[in-house]
Amino acid sequence: MRLTKQTNYGLRILMYCATNDVGLSRIQDIAKSYGVSETFMFKILQSLVKAGFVETVRGRNGGIKLAQPAANITMLNVVKVTEDQFLMAECFDAEFADCPLIDACNVNKALREALNAFFDVLSRYTIADLVENRVSMMTLLGIDAVEGVASNPV
Amino acid sequence: MRLTKQTNYGLRILMYCATNDVGLSRIQDIAKSYGVSETFMFKILQSLVKAGFVETVRGRNGGIKLAQPAANITMLNVVKVTEDQFLMAECFDAEFADCPLIDACNVNKALREALNAFFDVLSRYTIADLVENRVSMMTLLGIDAVEGVASNPV
Repeated sequence: MRLTKQTNYGLRILMYCATNDVGLSRIQDIAKSYGVSETFMFKILQSLVKAGFVETVRGRNGGIKLAQPAANITMLNVVKVTEDQFLMAECFDAEFADCPLIDACNVNKALREALNAFFDVLSRYTIADLVENRVSMMTLLGIDAVEGVASNPV
Repeated sequence: MRLTKQTNYGLRILMYCATNDVGLSRIQDIAKSYGVSETFMFKILQSLVKAGFVETVRGRNGGIKLAQPAANITMLNVVKVTEDQFLMAECFDAEFADCPLIDACNVNKALREALNAFFDVLSRYTIADLVENRVSMMTLLGIDAVEGVASNPV
């Protein structure tokens, strides 16, 4: 069981923006900080913009920033956008399930309860909580404290 | 996020054995009931035997049965055996993680807490709980109530 790369990097983009709250962030700098391709970052960015977590500012000095306070975006909000599915078992997708036990066994009930407990914890953590150690985050991400731009990308 | 097929069918093998508690179960019948290949079932069976959940009885009238009471085997016990990994994010595997934030952000903490809440629910459900509706389970799996053999495989 694991979360997708979309979730992993979706959270990281939001954390970058939350850390760099004095300026706009450039996707090039974010990609460089995390050592991944810009194309991959752009792909994830699209769903974050669509979900209303991030807004883009066009132009030569453009970039991206959070579209709402970091304390308003929970990990659950993000995961619901970046994970394709939460099909714990075949019977979570009634249309395709062909398990003969679908209406008789308690697997579905137990897994739904477990998944809800998982979601419940994620709903208690916001992007602001994730970047609590803002000063060390800035250093690690190479964000300049005054300018809000990548001064020393890792 | 989803569980592996190994978990899905590992649970189903155990549920079949728990339902058919008057006799030995044949892997051929189990595979037929669930509409999957015997080879796939044998592969999963190996890990269930190794974990001490199932024992095999050799011979012409041989088969498999639970090696311990169904009420003693929790879903968490099974999932720990059948899932390869619970790497919620890259930083769950410190050896391979190259995220610059590994020691500064709270993602790992939040995801571990969420995963533990998930595990906690699974530890409260046993194989016996999953086959609570034993009579309808027998019908659905085609298990004969007296003989304990597949009388009418689906």
